[in-house]
Amino acid sequence: MNPDLVETRGPLAIVCGGGVLPFAVADAVRSRGQEVVLFAIKGAADAARVKSYPHHWIGIGDAGKLYAGLRKEGCRDITFIGSVTRPSIKHIRVSLRTLLMLPRILSGFRGGDDHLLSKLGRVVANYGFHVVAPHEAAPEILIGEGDLTVRKPSSSDQADIARGFDLLRAVGPYDVGQAAVVVNQHVLAVEGIEGTDAMLARIAELRRQGRVNTAVGVGVLVKTAKPGQDRRFDLPAIGPQTIAGLELAGLGGIAVSAGEAVIAEPAEMVRAADAAHIFVTAVKARQ
Amino acid sequence: MNPDLVETRGPLAIVCGGGVLPFAVADAVRSRGQEVVLFAIKGAADAARVKSYPHHWIGIGDAGKLYAGLRKEGCRDITFIGSVTRPSIKHIRVSLRTLLMLPRILSGFRGGDDHLLSKLGRVVANYGFHVVAPHEAAPEILIGEGDLTVRKPSSSDQADIARGFDLLRAVGPYDVGQAAVVVNQHVLAVEGIEGTDAMLARIAELRRQGRVNTAVGVGVLVKTAKPGQDRRFDLPAIGPQTIAGLELAGLGGIAVSAGEAVIAEPAEMVRAADAAHIFVTAVKARQ
Repeated sequence: MNPDLVETRGPLAIVCGGGVLPFAVADAVRSRGQEVVLFAIKGAADAARVKSYPHHWIGIGDAGKLYAGLRKEGCRDITFIGSVTRPSIKHIRVSLRTLLMLPRILSGFRGGDDHLLSKLGRVVANYGFHVVAPHEAAPEILIGEGDLTVRKPSSSDQADIARGFDLLRAVGPYDVGQAAVVVNQHVLAVEGIEGTDAMLARIAELRRQGRVNTAVGVGVLVKTAKPGQDRRFDLPAIGPQTIAGLELAGLGGIAVSAGEAVIAEPAEMVRAADAAHIFVTAVKARQ
Repeated sequence: MNPDLVETRGPLAIVCGGGVLPFAVADAVRSRGQEVVLFAIKGAADAARVKSYPHHWIGIGDAGKLYAGLRKEGCRDITFIGSVTRPSIKHIRVSLRTLLMLPRILSGFRGGDDHLLSKLGRVVANYGFHVVAPHEAAPEILIGEGDLTVRKPSSSDQADIARGFDLLRAVGPYDVGQAAVVVNQHVLAVEGIEGTDAMLARIAELRRQGRVNTAVGVGVLVKTAKPGQDRRFDLPAIGPQTIAGLELAGLGGIAVSAGEAVIAEPAEMVRAADAAHIFVTAVKARQ
Protein backbone atom coordinates (compact mmCIF):
# COMPACT_ATOMS: atom_id res chain seq x y z
CA MET A 1 0.00 0.00 0.00
CA ASN A 2 1.25 3.43 -0.95
CA PRO A 3 1.50 5.56 2.21
CA ASP A 4 1.23 8.76 0.16
CA LEU A 5 -2.15 7.66 -1.14
CA VAL A 6 -3.31 7.00 2.39
CA GLU A 7 -2.09 10.45 3.36
CA THR A 8 -3.93 12.30 0.57
CA ARG A 9 -7.30 10.62 1.07
CA GLY A 10 -7.43 11.30 4.80
CA PRO A 11 -9.01 9.03 7.40
CA LEU A 12 -11.69 6.55 6.41
CA ALA A 13 -15.07 7.74 7.66
CA ILE A 14 -17.09 4.85 9.11
CA VAL A 15 -20.79 5.59 9.56
CA CYS A 16 -21.28 3.22 12.43
CA GLY A 17 -24.59 1.47 13.23
CA GLY A 18 -25.16 -1.25 15.82
CA GLY A 19 -23.24 -4.49 16.38
CA VAL A 20 -19.53 -5.30 16.44
CA LEU A 21 -18.80 -5.22 12.71
CA PRO A 22 -18.05 -1.48 12.51
CA PHE A 23 -15.22 -2.04 14.99
CA ALA A 24 -13.93 -5.09 13.09
CA VAL A 25 -13.68 -2.88 10.00
CA ALA A 26 -12.13 -0.03 11.98
CA ASP A 27 -9.51 -2.34 13.54
CA ALA A 28 -8.64 -3.93 10.19
CA VAL A 29 -8.21 -0.54 8.54
CA ARG A 30 -6.11 0.81 11.43
CA SER A 31 -3.92 -2.29 11.43
CA ARG A 32 -2.91 -1.31 7.89
CA GLY A 33 -1.93 2.11 9.14
CA GLN A 34 -4.88 4.09 7.87
CA GLU A 35 -6.71 6.37 10.28
CA VAL A 36 -10.45 6.06 10.84
CA VAL A 37 -13.11 8.42 12.16
CA LEU A 38 -16.39 6.97 13.34
CA PHE A 39 -19.66 8.76 12.69
CA ALA A 40 -21.62 6.88 15.31
CA ILE A 41 -25.39 6.76 14.87
CA LYS A 42 -27.25 7.69 18.04
CA GLY A 43 -29.39 4.89 19.37
CA ALA A 44 -27.59 2.30 17.25
CA ALA A 45 -23.78 2.33 17.76
CA ASP A 46 -22.24 0.76 20.87
CA ALA A 47 -21.19 3.80 22.93
CA ALA A 48 -18.69 1.88 25.06
CA ARG A 49 -16.73 0.80 21.99
CA VAL A 50 -17.16 4.00 19.98
CA LYS A 51 -15.13 5.98 22.50
CA SER A 52 -11.95 3.99 21.70
CA TYR A 53 -11.85 5.70 18.28
CA PRO A 54 -11.92 9.29 17.04
CA HIS A 55 -15.64 9.84 16.61
CA HIS A 56 -18.64 12.10 16.15
CA TRP A 57 -22.19 11.22 17.14
CA ILE A 58 -24.88 11.87 14.53
CA GLY A 59 -28.64 11.39 14.27
CA ILE A 60 -29.85 9.10 11.50
CA GLY A 61 -31.38 11.96 9.50
CA ASP A 62 -28.62 14.39 10.30
CA ALA A 63 -26.84 14.56 6.95
CA GLY A 64 -25.78 18.16 7.68
CA LYS A 65 -23.73 17.17 10.71
CA LEU A 66 -22.26 14.26 8.76
CA TYR A 67 -21.11 16.56 5.93
CA ALA A 68 -19.62 19.07 8.34
CA GLY A 69 -17.73 16.28 10.13
CA LEU A 70 -16.49 14.72 6.89
CA ARG A 71 -15.12 18.09 5.74
CA LYS A 72 -13.59 18.92 9.11
CA GLU A 73 -11.82 15.54 9.29
CA GLY A 74 -10.69 15.72 5.64
CA CYS A 75 -12.37 12.40 4.73
CA ARG A 76 -12.88 11.49 1.11
CA ASP A 77 -13.85 7.83 1.58
CA ILE A 78 -16.83 6.77 3.64
CA THR A 79 -18.16 3.36 4.55
CA PHE A 80 -21.51 2.48 6.12
CA ILE A 81 -21.76 -0.51 8.41
CA GLY A 82 -23.88 -1.86 11.25
CA SER A 83 -27.55 -2.29 12.00
CA VAL A 84 -29.94 0.64 12.17
CA THR A 85 -33.49 0.53 13.42
CA ARG A 86 -35.98 2.32 11.27
CA PRO A 87 -36.70 5.49 13.26
CA SER A 88 -40.17 6.84 13.64
CA ILE A 89 -40.28 10.06 11.70
CA LYS A 90 -41.04 12.14 14.75
CA HIS A 91 -37.81 11.03 16.40
CA ILE A 92 -35.52 12.35 13.69
CA ARG A 93 -33.83 15.47 14.96
CA VAL A 94 -34.48 18.01 12.30
CA SER A 95 -31.80 20.57 11.56
CA LEU A 96 -32.08 23.10 8.77
CA ARG A 97 -29.72 21.17 6.52
CA THR A 98 -31.31 17.84 7.35
CA LEU A 99 -34.63 19.27 6.41
CA LEU A 100 -33.27 19.84 2.90
CA MET A 101 -32.28 16.18 2.67
CA LEU A 102 -35.28 14.77 4.44
CA PRO A 103 -37.60 14.03 1.51
CA ARG A 104 -34.89 12.04 -0.24
CA ILE A 105 -33.92 10.15 2.89
CA LEU A 106 -37.48 9.42 3.96
CA SER A 107 -38.33 7.94 0.60
CA GLY A 108 -36.15 5.02 1.74
CA PHE A 109 -38.37 4.28 4.72
CA ARG A 110 -41.03 2.26 3.01
CA GLY A 111 -38.63 -0.50 1.98
CA GLY A 112 -36.49 -2.86 4.07
CA ASP A 113 -34.34 -1.65 6.94
CA ASP A 114 -31.25 -2.06 4.83
CA HIS A 115 -32.52 0.77 2.64
CA LEU A 116 -32.01 3.29 5.40
CA LEU A 117 -28.24 3.36 5.42
CA SER A 118 -28.09 2.83 1.68
CA LYS A 119 -30.32 5.83 1.06
CA LEU A 120 -28.13 7.99 3.28
CA GLY A 121 -25.13 6.59 1.44
CA ARG A 122 -26.47 7.50 -1.97
CA VAL A 123 -27.21 11.03 -0.85
CA VAL A 124 -23.64 11.33 0.44
CA ALA A 125 -22.28 9.97 -2.85
CA ASN A 126 -24.19 12.70 -4.68
CA TYR A 127 -22.15 15.25 -2.73
CA GLY A 128 -18.81 14.01 -4.07
CA PHE A 129 -17.71 11.64 -1.34
CA HIS A 130 -16.56 8.16 -2.27
CA VAL A 131 -18.67 5.37 -0.78
CA VAL A 132 -16.55 2.28 -0.06
CA ALA A 133 -18.08 -1.09 0.77
CA PRO A 134 -17.02 -2.39 4.20
CA HIS A 135 -15.51 -5.49 2.61
CA GLU A 136 -13.49 -3.30 0.24
CA ALA A 137 -12.16 -1.30 3.18
CA ALA A 138 -11.45 -4.49 5.17
CA PRO A 139 -11.43 -7.56 2.89
CA GLU A 140 -10.43 -9.78 5.83
CA ILE A 141 -13.96 -9.62 7.20
CA LEU A 142 -15.38 -11.62 4.23
CA ILE A 143 -15.70 -15.38 4.65
CA GLY A 144 -14.09 -17.42 1.85
CA GLU A 145 -15.36 -20.80 0.64
CA GLY A 146 -14.79 -23.83 2.87
CA ASP A 147 -15.15 -25.20 6.39
CA LEU A 148 -13.99 -23.04 9.30
CA THR A 149 -14.47 -25.54 12.11
CA VAL A 150 -13.45 -29.01 13.28
CA ARG A 151 -16.94 -30.35 12.66
CA LYS A 152 -17.83 -30.54 8.97
CA PRO A 153 -21.35 -30.71 7.57
CA SER A 154 -22.59 -34.29 6.96
CA SER A 155 -24.53 -35.23 3.84
CA SER A 156 -27.75 -34.71 5.82
CA ASP A 157 -26.52 -31.25 6.89
CA GLN A 158 -25.68 -30.52 3.26
CA ALA A 159 -29.21 -31.41 2.20
CA ASP A 160 -30.55 -28.96 4.81
CA ILE A 161 -28.10 -26.30 3.60
CA ALA A 162 -29.23 -26.74 -0.01
CA ARG A 163 -32.88 -26.50 0.98
CA GLY A 164 -32.22 -23.38 3.03
CA PHE A 165 -30.40 -21.60 0.20
CA ASP A 166 -33.19 -22.57 -2.22
CA LEU A 167 -35.75 -21.07 0.15
CA LEU A 168 -33.75 -17.86 0.61
CA ARG A 169 -33.47 -17.50 -3.15
CA ALA A 170 -37.25 -17.85 -3.40
CA VAL A 171 -37.92 -15.13 -0.80
CA GLY A 172 -35.09 -12.87 -2.01
CA PRO A 173 -37.28 -10.73 -4.30
CA TYR A 174 -39.48 -9.83 -1.32
CA ASP A 175 -36.74 -8.05 0.61
CA VAL A 176 -37.37 -10.28 3.60
CA GLY A 177 -34.64 -11.58 5.95
CA GLN A 178 -31.42 -13.17 4.87
CA ALA A 179 -31.59 -16.26 7.02
CA ALA A 180 -33.60 -19.39 7.76
CA VAL A 181 -33.42 -22.46 9.99
CA VAL A 182 -33.77 -25.89 8.37
CA VAL A 183 -33.82 -29.14 10.34
CA ASN A 184 -34.11 -32.50 8.58
CA GLN A 185 -35.38 -30.73 5.44
CA HIS A 186 -38.08 -28.97 7.46
CA VAL A 187 -38.03 -25.14 7.45
CA LEU A 188 -38.58 -24.11 11.08
CA ALA A 189 -38.10 -20.36 10.71
CA VAL A 190 -37.59 -17.61 8.17
CA GLU A 191 -35.98 -14.40 9.36
CA GLY A 192 -38.05 -11.22 9.18
CA ILE A 193 -37.12 -7.85 10.65
CA GLU A 194 -36.47 -9.45 14.03
CA GLY A 195 -32.96 -10.44 12.91
CA THR A 196 -30.95 -13.65 13.15
CA ASP A 197 -30.37 -13.59 16.92
CA ALA A 198 -34.08 -13.20 17.65
CA MET A 199 -34.94 -15.95 15.16
CA LEU A 200 -32.54 -18.34 16.93
CA ALA A 201 -33.99 -17.32 20.31
CA ARG A 202 -37.42 -18.25 18.94
CA ILE A 203 -36.24 -21.75 18.10
CA ALA A 204 -34.70 -22.06 21.57
CA GLU A 205 -38.01 -21.01 23.13
CA LEU A 206 -40.01 -23.47 20.97
CA ARG A 207 -37.58 -26.17 22.07
CA ARG A 208 -38.17 -25.26 25.74
CA GLN A 209 -41.90 -25.54 25.09
CA GLY A 210 -41.44 -28.97 23.51
CA ARG A 211 -42.64 -27.70 20.12
CA VAL A 212 -39.20 -28.33 18.62
CA ASN A 213 -37.90 -31.69 19.72
CA THR A 214 -35.53 -32.79 17.04
CA ALA A 215 -32.20 -34.10 18.32
CA VAL A 216 -29.84 -31.43 19.68
CA GLY A 217 -26.98 -30.71 17.27
CA VAL A 218 -29.06 -31.33 14.15
CA GLY A 219 -30.16 -28.62 11.72
CA VAL A 220 -28.62 -25.54 10.16
CA LEU A 221 -28.82 -21.80 10.13
CA VAL A 222 -28.40 -20.65 6.53
CA LYS A 223 -27.55 -17.04 5.85
CA THR A 224 -26.96 -15.25 2.60
CA ALA A 225 -27.10 -11.89 0.89
CA LYS A 226 -30.41 -10.95 -0.68
CA PRO A 227 -30.43 -11.00 -4.46
CA GLY A 228 -29.77 -7.46 -5.66
CA GLN A 229 -28.71 -6.33 -2.18
CA ASP A 230 -26.34 -3.37 -2.35
CA ARG A 231 -23.25 -4.79 -0.67
CA ARG A 232 -21.86 -1.37 0.00
CA PHE A 233 -24.47 -1.06 2.71
CA ASP A 234 -25.60 -4.44 3.93
CA LEU A 235 -23.70 -7.69 4.36
CA PRO A 236 -24.95 -10.80 6.14
CA ALA A 237 -22.91 -11.19 9.32
CA ILE A 238 -22.20 -13.90 11.87
CA GLY A 239 -20.10 -13.85 15.03
CA PRO A 240 -19.64 -15.41 18.47
CA GLN A 241 -23.16 -14.47 19.53
CA THR A 242 -24.53 -16.38 16.54
CA ILE A 243 -22.80 -19.50 17.92
CA ALA A 244 -24.32 -18.84 21.35
CA GLY A 245 -27.74 -18.53 19.72
CA LEU A 246 -27.22 -21.80 17.83
CA GLU A 247 -26.31 -23.62 21.03
CA LEU A 248 -29.49 -22.46 22.76
CA ALA A 249 -31.53 -23.40 19.70
CA GLY A 250 -29.88 -26.84 19.66
CA LEU A 251 -28.78 -26.61 16.03
CA GLY A 252 -25.77 -28.24 14.40
CA GLY A 253 -24.17 -25.59 12.23
CA ILE A 254 -24.12 -22.46 10.13
CA ALA A 255 -23.81 -22.16 6.37
CA VAL A 256 -23.19 -18.78 4.75
CA SER A 257 -22.66 -17.92 1.12
CA ALA A 258 -18.92 -17.66 0.46
CA GLY A 259 -17.55 -14.23 -0.33
CA GLU A 260 -20.81 -12.53 0.62
CA ALA A 261 -21.00 -12.81 4.39
CA VAL A 262 -18.81 -11.23 7.02
CA ILE A 263 -17.58 -12.49 10.34
CA ALA A 264 -17.26 -10.50 13.53
CA GLU A 265 -14.40 -11.64 15.81
CA PRO A 266 -13.53 -14.70 13.66
CA ALA A 267 -11.02 -16.35 16.02
CA GLU A 268 -13.41 -16.14 18.95
CA MET A 269 -16.29 -17.38 16.83
CA VAL A 270 -14.41 -20.46 15.62
CA ARG A 271 -13.22 -21.23 19.17
CA ALA A 272 -16.80 -21.06 20.45
CA ALA A 273 -18.09 -23.19 17.57
CA ASP A 274 -15.46 -25.89 18.10
CA ALA A 275 -16.17 -25.97 21.83
CA ALA A 276 -19.88 -26.50 21.08
CA HIS A 277 -19.26 -29.02 18.26
CA ILE A 278 -20.95 -26.69 15.79
CA PHE A 279 -19.87 -26.43 12.16
CA VAL A 280 -19.44 -23.19 10.24
CA THR A 281 -19.10 -23.48 6.50
CA ALA A 282 -19.11 -21.05 3.60
CA VAL A 283 -20.67 -22.43 0.45
CA LYS A 284 -20.22 -21.08 -3.04
CA ALA A 285 -23.57 -19.62 -4.07
CA ARG A 286 -25.33 -21.40 -6.93
CA GLN A 287 -26.51 -19.04 -9.63
CA MET B 1 -80.34 -34.47 3.97
CA ASN B 2 -81.57 -38.06 4.04
CA PRO B 3 -81.92 -39.11 7.70
CA ASP B 4 -81.57 -42.78 6.73
CA LEU B 5 -78.14 -42.09 5.28
CA VAL B 6 -77.08 -40.35 8.49
CA GLU B 7 -78.35 -43.35 10.42
CA THR B 8 -76.47 -45.93 8.40
CA ARG B 9 -73.10 -44.16 8.47
CA GLY B 10 -73.08 -43.69 12.25
CA PRO B 11 -71.59 -40.74 14.08
CA LEU B 12 -68.84 -38.62 12.47
CA ALA B 13 -65.50 -39.37 14.13
CA ILE B 14 -63.52 -36.17 14.71
CA VAL B 15 -59.84 -36.72 15.46
CA CYS B 16 -59.40 -33.60 17.50
CA GLY B 17 -56.12 -31.66 17.84
CA GLY B 18 -55.61 -28.28 19.56
CA GLY B 19 -57.54 -25.06 19.05
CA VAL B 20 -61.26 -24.26 18.77
CA LEU B 21 -61.88 -25.46 15.22
CA PRO B 22 -62.63 -29.10 16.10
CA PHE B 23 -65.52 -27.86 18.23
CA ALA B 24 -66.77 -25.51 15.49
CA VAL B 25 -66.93 -28.54 13.18
CA ALA B 26 -68.55 -30.69 15.86
CA ASP B 27 -71.20 -28.05 16.59
CA ALA B 28 -71.99 -27.51 12.89
CA VAL B 29 -72.38 -31.26 12.32
CA ARG B 30 -74.56 -31.72 15.42
CA SER B 31 -76.74 -28.76 14.45
CA ARG B 32 -77.66 -30.74 11.33
CA GLY B 33 -78.68 -33.65 13.50
CA GLN B 34 -75.69 -35.92 12.96
CA GLU B 35 -73.94 -37.33 15.99
CA VAL B 36 -70.20 -36.86 16.54
CA VAL B 37 -67.59 -38.70 18.56
CA LEU B 38 -64.34 -36.94 19.35
CA PHE B 39 -61.06 -38.83 19.35
CA ALA B 40 -59.17 -36.25 21.34
CA ILE B 41 -55.39 -36.24 21.00
CA LYS B 42 -53.63 -36.18 24.36
CA GLY B 43 -51.52 -33.08 24.86
CA ALA B 44 -53.24 -31.26 22.01
CA ALA B 45 -57.06 -31.16 22.40
CA ASP B 46 -58.70 -28.76 24.87
CA ALA B 47 -59.82 -31.07 27.69
CA ALA B 48 -62.38 -28.62 29.08
CA ARG B 49 -64.24 -28.50 25.78
CA VAL B 50 -63.76 -32.15 24.83
CA LYS B 51 -65.87 -33.32 27.75
CA SER B 52 -69.02 -31.67 26.30
CA TYR B 53 -69.02 -34.31 23.54
CA PRO B 54 -68.94 -38.10 23.43
CA HIS B 55 -65.19 -38.73 23.28
CA HIS B 56 -62.19 -41.01 23.60
CA TRP B 57 -58.66 -39.83 24.39
CA ILE B 58 -55.90 -41.24 22.17
CA GLY B 59 -52.13 -40.83 21.89
CA ILE B 60 -50.81 -39.47 18.61
CA GLY B 61 -49.24 -42.79 17.60
CA ASP B 62 -52.04 -44.89 19.01
CA ALA B 63 -53.73 -46.04 15.82
CA GLY B 64 -54.82 -49.26 17.52
CA LYS B 65 -56.95 -47.44 20.07
CA LEU B 66 -58.37 -45.25 17.31
CA TYR B 67 -59.45 -48.30 15.26
CA ALA B 68 -61.01 -49.98 18.25
CA GLY B 69 -62.92 -46.78 19.08
CA LEU B 70 -64.09 -46.27 15.49
CA ARG B 71 -65.42 -49.81 15.36
CA LYS B 72 -67.05 -49.62 18.78
CA GLU B 73 -68.82 -46.35 17.89
CA GLY B 74 -69.83 -47.60 14.44
CA CYS B 75 -68.14 -44.72 12.63
CA ARG B 76 -67.54 -44.90 8.91
CA ASP B 77 -66.56 -41.26 8.30
CA ILE B 78 -63.65 -39.63 10.04
CA THR B 79 -62.31 -36.08 9.94
CA PHE B 80 -59.01 -34.77 11.26
CA ILE B 81 -58.79 -31.22 12.57
CA GLY B 82 -56.76 -29.10 14.96
CA SER B 83 -53.11 -28.45 15.65
CA VAL B 84 -50.74 -31.18 16.78
CA THR B 85 -47.24 -30.68 18.08
CA ARG B 86 -44.70 -33.02 16.61
CA PRO B 87 -44.02 -35.46 19.44
CA SER B 88 -40.56 -36.61 20.32
CA ILE B 89 -40.40 -40.25 19.39
CA LYS B 90 -39.68 -41.35 22.94
CA HIS B 91 -42.98 -39.83 24.13
CA ILE B 92 -45.18 -41.91 21.89
CA ARG B 93 -46.93 -44.52 23.97
CA VAL B 94 -46.22 -47.76 22.22
CA SER B 95 -48.87 -50.43 22.22
CA LEU B 96 -48.53 -53.69 20.30
CA ARG B 97 -50.84 -52.52 17.52
CA THR B 98 -49.27 -49.06 17.40
CA LEU B 99 -45.91 -50.69 16.98
CA LEU B 100 -47.18 -52.26 13.77
CA MET B 101 -48.17 -48.84 12.44
CA LEU B 102 -45.20 -46.92 13.78
CA PRO B 103 -42.83 -47.12 10.81
CA ARG B 104 -45.49 -45.76 8.47
CA ILE B 105 -46.53 -43.01 10.86
CA LEU B 106 -42.99 -42.01 11.75
CA SER B 107 -42.04 -41.58 8.12
CA GLY B 108 -44.23 -38.47 8.26
CA PHE B 109 -42.07 -36.83 10.93
CA ARG B 110 -39.36 -35.37 8.74
CA GLY B 111 -41.75 -33.05 6.91
CA GLY B 112 -43.94 -30.20 8.17
CA ASP B 113 -46.16 -30.53 11.23
CA ASP B 114 -49.19 -30.78 8.98
CA HIS B 115 -47.86 -34.12 7.76
CA LEU B 116 -48.47 -35.72 11.13
CA LEU B 117 -52.24 -35.78 11.08
CA SER B 118 -52.29 -36.40 7.33
CA LYS B 119 -50.05 -39.45 7.70
CA LEU B 120 -52.29 -40.86 10.39
CA GLY B 121 -55.27 -40.08 8.13
CA ARG B 122 -53.83 -41.96 5.17
CA VAL B 123 -53.14 -45.00 7.31
CA VAL B 124 -56.74 -44.91 8.53
CA ALA B 125 -58.02 -44.60 4.96
CA ASN B 126 -56.09 -47.75 4.07
CA TYR B 127 -58.19 -49.61 6.64
CA GLY B 128 -61.50 -48.84 4.91
CA PHE B 129 -62.65 -45.75 6.77
CA HIS B 130 -63.74 -42.71 4.79
CA VAL B 131 -61.66 -39.59 5.46
CA VAL B 132 -63.79 -36.45 5.16
CA ALA B 133 -62.28 -32.95 5.00
CA PRO B 134 -63.42 -30.69 7.88
CA HIS B 135 -64.88 -28.20 5.39
CA GLU B 136 -66.84 -31.02 3.72
CA ALA B 137 -68.27 -32.06 7.08
CA ALA B 138 -69.00 -28.43 8.01
CA PRO B 139 -68.96 -26.16 4.93
CA GLU B 140 -70.04 -23.18 7.05
CA ILE B 141 -66.54 -22.89 8.52
CA LEU B 142 -65.04 -21.87 5.13
CA ILE B 143 -64.69 -18.14 4.43
CA GLY B 144 -66.21 -17.00 1.11
CA GLU B 145 -64.89 -14.12 -1.01
CA GLY B 146 -65.52 -10.57 0.21
CA ASP B 147 -65.22 -8.20 3.16
CA LEU B 148 -66.44 -9.40 6.55
CA THR B 149 -66.03 -6.17 8.48
CA VAL B 150 -67.07 -2.52 8.53
CA ARG B 151 -63.54 -1.43 7.64
CA LYS B 152 -62.59 -2.34 4.08
CA PRO B 153 -59.01 -2.59 2.77
CA SER B 154 -57.74 0.64 1.19
CA SER B 155 -55.73 0.63 -2.02
CA SER B 156 -52.56 0.72 0.08
CA ASP B 157 -53.83 -2.25 2.12
CA GLN B 158 -54.59 -4.04 -1.14
CA ALA B 159 -51.03 -3.50 -2.34
CA ASP B 160 -49.76 -5.05 0.92
CA ILE B 161 -52.18 -7.95 0.50
CA ALA B 162 -50.97 -8.63 -3.05
CA ARG B 163 -47.34 -8.55 -1.94
CA GLY B 164 -48.08 -10.92 0.92
CA PHE B 165 -49.83 -13.46 -1.29
CA ASP B 166 -46.98 -13.26 -3.82
CA LEU B 167 -44.48 -13.99 -1.04
CA LEU B 168 -46.53 -16.91 0.31
CA ARG B 169 -46.71 -18.38 -3.18
CA ALA B 170 -42.92 -18.12 -3.43
CA VAL B 171 -42.34 -19.95 -0.12
CA GLY B 172 -45.13 -22.47 -0.68
CA PRO B 173 -42.91 -25.19 -2.16
CA TYR B 174 -40.77 -25.14 1.01
CA ASP B 175 -43.58 -26.27 3.32
CA VAL B 176 -43.01 -23.24 5.52
CA GLY B 177 -45.78 -21.29 7.31
CA GLN B 178 -48.96 -20.12 5.69
CA ALA B 179 -48.84 -16.52 6.84
CA ALA B 180 -46.84 -13.31 6.67
CA VAL B 181 -47.05 -9.72 7.86
CA VAL B 182 -46.65 -6.92 5.29
CA VAL B 183 -46.63 -3.23 6.21
CA ASN B 184 -46.27 -0.55 3.55
CA GLN B 185 -44.94 -3.18 1.11
CA HIS B 186 -42.31 -4.23 3.64
CA VAL B 187 -42.37 -7.90 4.76
CA LEU B 188 -41.91 -7.80 8.53
CA ALA B 189 -42.40 -11.49 9.29
CA VAL B 190 -42.86 -14.87 7.68
CA GLU B 191 -44.51 -17.59 9.74
CA GLY B 192 -42.46 -20.65 10.56
CA ILE B 193 -43.42 -23.44 12.96
CA GLU B 194 -44.15 -20.89 15.69
CA GLY B 195 -47.62 -20.31 14.22
CA THR B 196 -49.63 -17.17 13.45
CA ASP B 197 -50.31 -16.11 17.04
CA ALA B 198 -46.62 -16.25 17.95
CA MET B 199 -45.70 -14.37 14.78
CA LEU B 200 -48.12 -11.58 15.70
CA ALA B 201 -46.75 -11.53 19.26
CA ARG B 202 -43.28 -11.04 17.76
CA ILE B 203 -44.43 -7.95 15.88
CA ALA B 204 -46.06 -6.64 19.07
CA GLU B 205 -42.78 -7.15 20.94
CA LEU B 206 -40.73 -5.45 18.19
CA ARG B 207 -43.17 -2.54 18.38
CA ARG B 208 -42.68 -2.31 22.16
CA GLN B 209 -38.93 -2.24 21.55
CA GLY B 210 -39.32 0.56 19.02
CA ARG B 211 -38.08 -1.65 16.19
CA VAL B 212 -41.46 -1.53 14.49
CA ASN B 213 -42.77 2.01 14.50
CA THR B 214 -45.06 2.27 11.55
CA ALA B 215 -48.42 3.89 12.32
CA VAL B 216 -50.83 1.73 14.33
CA GLY B 217 -53.63 0.32 12.19
CA VAL B 218 -51.47 0.00 9.08
CA GLY B 219 -50.32 -3.31 7.60
CA VAL B 220 -51.83 -6.71 6.98
CA LEU B 221 -51.67 -10.30 8.08
CA VAL B 222 -52.00 -12.48 4.99
CA LYS B 223 -52.84 -16.13 5.40
CA THR B 224 -53.36 -18.82 2.82
CA ALA B 225 -53.20 -22.54 2.18
CA LYS B 226 -49.86 -23.89 1.05
CA PRO B 227 -49.75 -24.99 -2.59
CA GLY B 228 -50.40 -28.70 -2.69
CA GLN B 229 -51.53 -28.77 0.93
CA ASP B 230 -53.91 -31.65 1.59
CA ARG B 231 -57.03 -29.80 2.71
CA ARG B 232 -58.46 -32.89 4.32
CA PHE B 233 -55.92 -32.38 7.05
CA ASP B 234 -54.83 -28.78 7.25
CA LEU B 235 -56.72 -25.55 6.65
CA PRO B 236 -55.50 -22.04 7.47
CA ALA B 237 -57.61 -20.71 10.31
CA ILE B 238 -58.37 -17.36 11.93
CA GLY B 239 -60.53 -16.47 14.90
CA PRO B 240 -61.08 -13.95 17.71
CA GLN B 241 -57.58 -14.52 19.08
CA THR B 242 -56.14 -13.58 15.69
CA ILE B 243 -57.88 -10.20 16.04
CA ALA B 244 -56.45 -9.81 19.55
CA GLY B 245 -52.98 -10.58 18.16
CA LEU B 246 -53.44 -8.02 15.38
CA GLU B 247 -54.42 -5.32 17.86
CA LEU B 248 -51.29 -5.92 19.94
CA ALA B 249 -49.17 -5.93 16.79
CA GLY B 250 -50.80 -2.66 15.69
CA LEU B 251 -51.82 -3.95 12.27
CA GLY B 252 -54.79 -2.89 10.16
CA GLY B 253 -56.34 -6.07 8.83
CA ILE B 254 -56.35 -9.69 7.76
CA ALA B 255 -56.58 -11.10 4.26
CA VAL B 256 -57.17 -14.81 3.70
CA SER B 257 -57.63 -16.71 0.48
CA ALA B 258 -61.35 -17.17 -0.16
CA GLY B 259 -62.72 -20.70 0.08
CA GLU B 260 -59.48 -22.02 1.55
CA ALA B 261 -59.41 -20.62 5.08
CA VAL B 262 -61.66 -21.38 8.00
CA ILE B 263 -62.94 -19.16 10.75
CA ALA B 264 -63.37 -20.11 14.38
CA GLU B 265 -66.25 -18.34 16.15
CA PRO B 266 -67.07 -16.08 13.16
CA ALA B 267 -69.61 -13.79 14.85
CA GLU B 268 -67.32 -13.12 17.79
CA MET B 269 -64.37 -12.55 15.46
CA VAL B 270 -66.21 -9.97 13.34
CA ARG B 271 -67.48 -8.20 16.47
CA ALA B 272 -63.92 -7.97 17.84
CA ALA B 273 -62.56 -6.80 14.48
CA ASP B 274 -65.18 -4.06 14.12
CA ALA B 275 -64.58 -2.88 17.67
CA ALA B 276 -60.85 -2.60 16.89
CA HIS B 277 -61.38 -1.00 13.45
CA ILE B 278 -59.64 -3.97 11.82
CA PHE B 279 -60.63 -5.30 8.42
CA VAL B 280 -61.02 -8.97 7.53
CA THR B 281 -61.29 -9.82 3.86
CA ALA B 282 -61.23 -13.00 1.82
CA VAL B 283 -59.56 -12.63 -1.55
CA LYS B 284 -59.93 -14.96 -4.50
CA ALA B 285 -56.56 -16.66 -4.96
CA ARG B 286 -54.72 -15.80 -8.16
CA GLN B 287 -53.47 -18.84 -9.99
